[in-house]
Amino acid sequence: MRKRYLNTLGKEEALKRVLACVRPLEAAELILVPSCRGRITAEPVRARLSNPPFTCAAMDGYAVAFERTLDADLARPVSLALGEDAQAVNTGDPLPSGMNAVVMAEDAEESAQAIAIRKPASLWQHVRLTGEDIIEGDILFPANYSLGILDLGLLLAGGIREVLVRKRPRLLITPTGHELIDIFDQPTDEVRENRLVDFNSYILAALGEEMGFEVTRTEIARNSDHLRAILTQQMAAHDVLVINAGSSAGTEDTTEGIIREFGELIFHGVSLMPGKPTMFGLIEGKPVFGIPGYPVSAVISFKTFLQAVYERLSSFGRPAERTLACVTPFKIPSTIGVEEVLRVMLIAKGGRYYAYPLPRGAAVFSSLSRADALVSVPENVEGYDADTELRAVLLRPEEELRNRLHIVGSHDLSLDVLRDMIKTRRPTMDLISAHVGSLSGILAMQKGIVDLATTHILDEQEKVYNIPAAKKYLAGRGFLLVHIAKRIQGLLTAKGNPKAIREIVDLARKDVRFVNRQVGSGTRILLDMMLKEKGIDRCSIQGYDREESTHAATAILVKEGIADTGLAIYPVSRIFGLDFIPLMEEEYDLLVTKEFSEDPRFALIMDLFTSAEFASRLGELGGYSTKDSGKVKYVNG
Amino acid sequence: MRKRYLNTLGKEEALKRVLACVRPLEAAELILVPSCRGRITAEPVRARLSNPPFTCAAMDGYAVAFERTLDADLARPVSLALGEDAQAVNTGDPLPSGMNAVVMAEDAEESAQAIAIRKPASLWQHVRLTGEDIIEGDILFPANYSLGILDLGLLLAGGIREVLVRKRPRLLITPTGHELIDIFDQPTDEVRENRLVDFNSYILAALGEEMGFEVTRTEIARNSDHLRAILTQQMAAHDVLVINAGSSAGTEDTTEGIIREFGELIFHGVSLMPGKPTMFGLIEGKPVFGIPGYPVSAVISFKTFLQAVYERLSSFGRPAERTLACVTPFKIPSTIGVEEVLRVMLIAKGGRYYAYPLPRGAAVFSSLSRADALVSVPENVEGYDADTELRAVLLRPEEELRNRLHIVGSHDLSLDVLRDMIKTRRPTMDLISAHVGSLSGILAMQKGIVDLATTHILDEQEKVYNIPAAKKYLAGRGFLLVHIAKRIQGLLTAKGNPKAIREIVDLARKDVRFVNRQVGSGTRILLDMMLKEKGIDRCSIQGYDREESTHAATAILVKEGIADTGLAIYPVSRIFGLDFIPLMEEEYDLLVTKEFSEDPRFALIMDLFTSAEFASRLGELGGYSTKDSGKVKYVNG
Repeated sequence: MRKRYLNTLGKEEALKRVLACVRPLEAAELILVPSCRGRITAEPVRARLSNPPFTCAAMDGYAVAFERTLDADLARPVSLALGEDAQAVNTGDPLPSGMNAVVMAEDAEESAQAIAIRKPASLWQHVRLTGEDIIEGDILFPANYSLGILDLGLLLAGGIREVLVRKRPRLLITPTGHELIDIFDQPTDEVRENRLVDFNSYILAALGEEMGFEVTRTEIARNSDHLRAILTQQMAAHDVLVINAGSSAGTEDTTEGIIREFGELIFHGVSLMPGKPTMFGLIEGKPVFGIPGYPVSAVISFKTFLQAVYERLSSFGRPAERTLACVTPFKIPSTIGVEEVLRVMLIAKGGRYYAYPLPRGAAVFSSLSRADALVSVPENVEGYDADTELRAVLLRPEEELRNRLHIVGSHDLSLDVLRDMIKTRRPTMDLISAHVGSLSGILAMQKGIVDLATTHILDEQEKVYNIPAAKKYLAGRGFLLVHIAKRIQGLLTAKGNPKAIREIVDLARKDVRFVNRQVGSGTRILLDMMLKEKGIDRCSIQGYDREESTHAATAILVKEGIADTGLAIYPVSRIFGLDFIPLMEEEYDLLVTKEFSEDPRFALIMDLFTSAEFASRLGELGGYSTKDSGKVKYVNG
Repeated sequence: MRKRYLNTLGKEEALKRVLACVRPLEAAELILVPSCRGRITAEPVRARLSNPPFTCAAMDGYAVAFERTLDADLARPVSLALGEDAQAVNTGDPLPSGMNAVVMAEDAEESAQAIAIRKPASLWQHVRLTGEDIIEGDILFPANYSLGILDLGLLLAGGIREVLVRKRPRLLITPTGHELIDIFDQPTDEVRENRLVDFNSYILAALGEEMGFEVTRTEIARNSDHLRAILTQQMAAHDVLVINAGSSAGTEDTTEGIIREFGELIFHGVSLMPGKPTMFGLIEGKPVFGIPGYPVSAVISFKTFLQAVYERLSSFGRPAERTLACVTPFKIPSTIGVEEVLRVMLIAKGGRYYAYPLPRGAAVFSSLSRADALVSVPENVEGYDADTELRAVLLRPEEELRNRLHIVGSHDLSLDVLRDMIKTRRPTMDLISAHVGSLSGILAMQKGIVDLATTHILDEQEKVYNIPAAKKYLAGRGFLLVHIAKRIQGLLTAKGNPKAIREIVDLARKDVRFVNRQVGSGTRILLDMMLKEKGIDRCSIQGYDREESTHAATAILVKEGIADTGLAIYPVSRIFGLDFIPLMEEEYDLLVTKEFSEDPRFALIMDLFTSAEFASRLGELGGYSTKDSGKVKYVNG
């Protein structure tokens, strides 16, 4: 009785043994982007161009300066001279100099020399800013990423014509068997005589091509000497060998013997049904498979092992940290019918990474323009619900993510100082802040999404900063409230204060145009409180409805003369060369979760808050008091 | 204010209008089978070779004549001389003449000149019979079938090297827009100046290639004259045109004008989000699309319309009856990890088609070797449960299926006569019978799967044929029992009856070897009843456990001398030249469902049963009485 399989391994064990023997190929080649589909990047791909590469129209219509449209209303259109105050543009045209908004064609009444509009435009309306999608130098794809059809668009948009990809692994497929004929070598009639048509090797070749191999199918090895000759001649020029079949127990079963003769047999027999008589060995360090003869077994065995070998050889998914488990912090919509690749920021919190998609164009997280990772939403998925587990493909090492602190909440220039001081002391560490306003920051902490939130909310009743709001929203959570600095809020006016604005009641004057801050910001809360105190009707303030989301945006509108005044912190008045009427000293504080307060990085931050450098740098900016910086004002839980 | 979309159609309506304008292309080409993946057949593909093309070994081992192995047991092995009584064979080797079974290598003890085996072999054990998988002339694939990787194996196995497929439709993609540059035409630095990189047309070209188009991407049309020139030059050599974009409302939106100028605009605007500004028209009768400019809109619009156009142009799924809804009659297992294409027989019943998979090799439905249709089981599906709705790809016109009668149950030669008489009178009609035994036939009718079942079951108590069994199993159903013929069952013996077998009690003799029929067959039921009546112990009968499933198989074993006797109908004794000892006249009847009894085809069958020709042809076969043929013996419900 002849010997059966040497050993029968479990499928997972067999795959493990195979992968332990296969080393990634280093060879790479530059290929043109239009033919890069399915290829695997050999290095991180960085954008060579921003996209858009210049500020341009996002709609067909007329480029205008939005300031000149503010008086437009339905009854009294504003007329803008063509070629001067308005210039016809199509989508993608560079925005003419001096223009900062586009009015859609259908919202403009065109006459010979002018257009009439009946609705004011807003700043950057229907405009794409330089680098809104891609910033030059951005990592578009990491190394070892498998490129899809839509990725091709991102590469071209990033100014990339050629991409360095792994060379395709070369797969040699050798059919064996004295009973087989190649139908393309023989007249059909001969088949009828005493030979079976070899079709397995053609199926395996097609499957191999589909996986990404460069496939060579050899002639049929009729006996062991013939197989020896084929191996001797072809092995050097290939990376993987598949022998089909000769892996069972007949007299012609020479595959096992030949693998032993030329190299080393690792296993023969896998508990895979069908596909059991699969054989694996190494010849000159290269993986060699004996794939069973029955067609279904052959396909199952080939798919199981060769897909894994392909991925290993071509480095696809090589480093363990290349992809990362993460969860969606909220519902993320996506368009059905297209595979979308979302660029996300990853925030570590409580042992999980949350994937925040970076929206195209300006948005909440606009200060965080560089993506950490890519998350794909398959074609047939209409986005993800909150708390969906995903795998993100990293664009930067995970360490960099782990060493990054995220602060969400109200923005202040002291955070830029803090970041700079951290990076100087700990080059691998970084501080990223998202400017979402005081209240949103507290709510993000309430949801357990962030460890650090900045806030300046004055309680109307108690006339105390931050503690009442924190107590109210974070009742169930352990947290600390740490004082960062006191800062002065006041009214910005043009240089020389031409409208002679002195105090908050001046906002209600008919000749004063105001610019407001967004609901939920500490500055807005402060304003509303002061108005109430003074008994001023909001409706009497021109521009109360115009909201901006940063101190700087307020300053720009005042600087440009679009508004006469707005509430902001002192340092921006210096930066933009504006006058400043101080109204209130407020407390800008940091909320810290109990967990994070035990992190060594928290100790570093506390050291910095109390350092002489922090005090002196805020002093240079002006309007700050750092007397109590770093003081823990309140502890909960 | 400029004009917006002419009209906004619903997506389904838009697709309908597009398809109403697109005619299938007739052009076809012969291509080599290894590169036929994804191509669409232009005519039905018929096997040029049977597979296997000759009877061959299905295992590595030894070819033997099974008759010589019958005495083998564990204690007393049978020795077979190598080269004479046993010949070494490998899988796929032709079976040497005179051999009819293969003993696996591991079941044989080999010495220099002989092998010893310790277990009897059975007829055709580990043997593949000629045409077991494919019969020469079989339709492997119908016209307009999209060929997959595994299909390639079936084509080669069927002896096919080249296949006639539809030519790929030729798609022309023209990017438009003065603001665009082709990154491959320009130094990268120029992009920065005032142009946006065109990447849409490359994405659309890749998607088009993937669908199956032969794609030409033209240079960017910078203005309407340029677009006119490209159309004039290229339109004749292409089947479809995609213009991207120019389908919105800007001054450069010349696409609509140009379609009107060169041909006819059918619609502009579809309620597809994103993808609304899609445009469709005809130029020289060829479909032309204006695909929107925003990348996601472009992809959605392209996929929606161009996939449908591709399928229509290439005739994929053209005739409405090419696929057919059907259901699985029972659970059908399949191997996970491989897309399997099952060859099925379709049986119409109660307004539905049931898909019976044709197993490889001999099986229940072996008399129905030609498949009606293909059903695919996707790679990630582990078979189908009973009553799963499927779509089958037809291999023959649906009419042929509708005009086919199926009889399931006990086999008798009278069915072959009936079929022949039907086909002579109604060439488009056919009668297909599946030989599963009387009881299985009744049970199939009970399940509602068939309309016609043949039976000969004698009730032990009542001594009446068929009526008691039908009443018992079909109590709730409306049915008729129609008499076909009386026939004689008896014992077959070798010519001259060498063992002098006279009656049923002789079966218990020590020197008599019997061959039995399968459980559930009317003949087996008859035997068991006679044994009981005579008080004969089953265990005393040598060969009681050896079961065959047809009268003919019983006859062969007696003819070959492997058994001395077996129970069968009279005509087979004449066909095989055996002696016959008549034991019992039995009634062979047809069960007909109430529904089918109202079908005009039932009237035809009744006419034939009572015809002179039917009586005379059964008379020629011998052993039949047709006195009451066509008589309705029982009606239920």
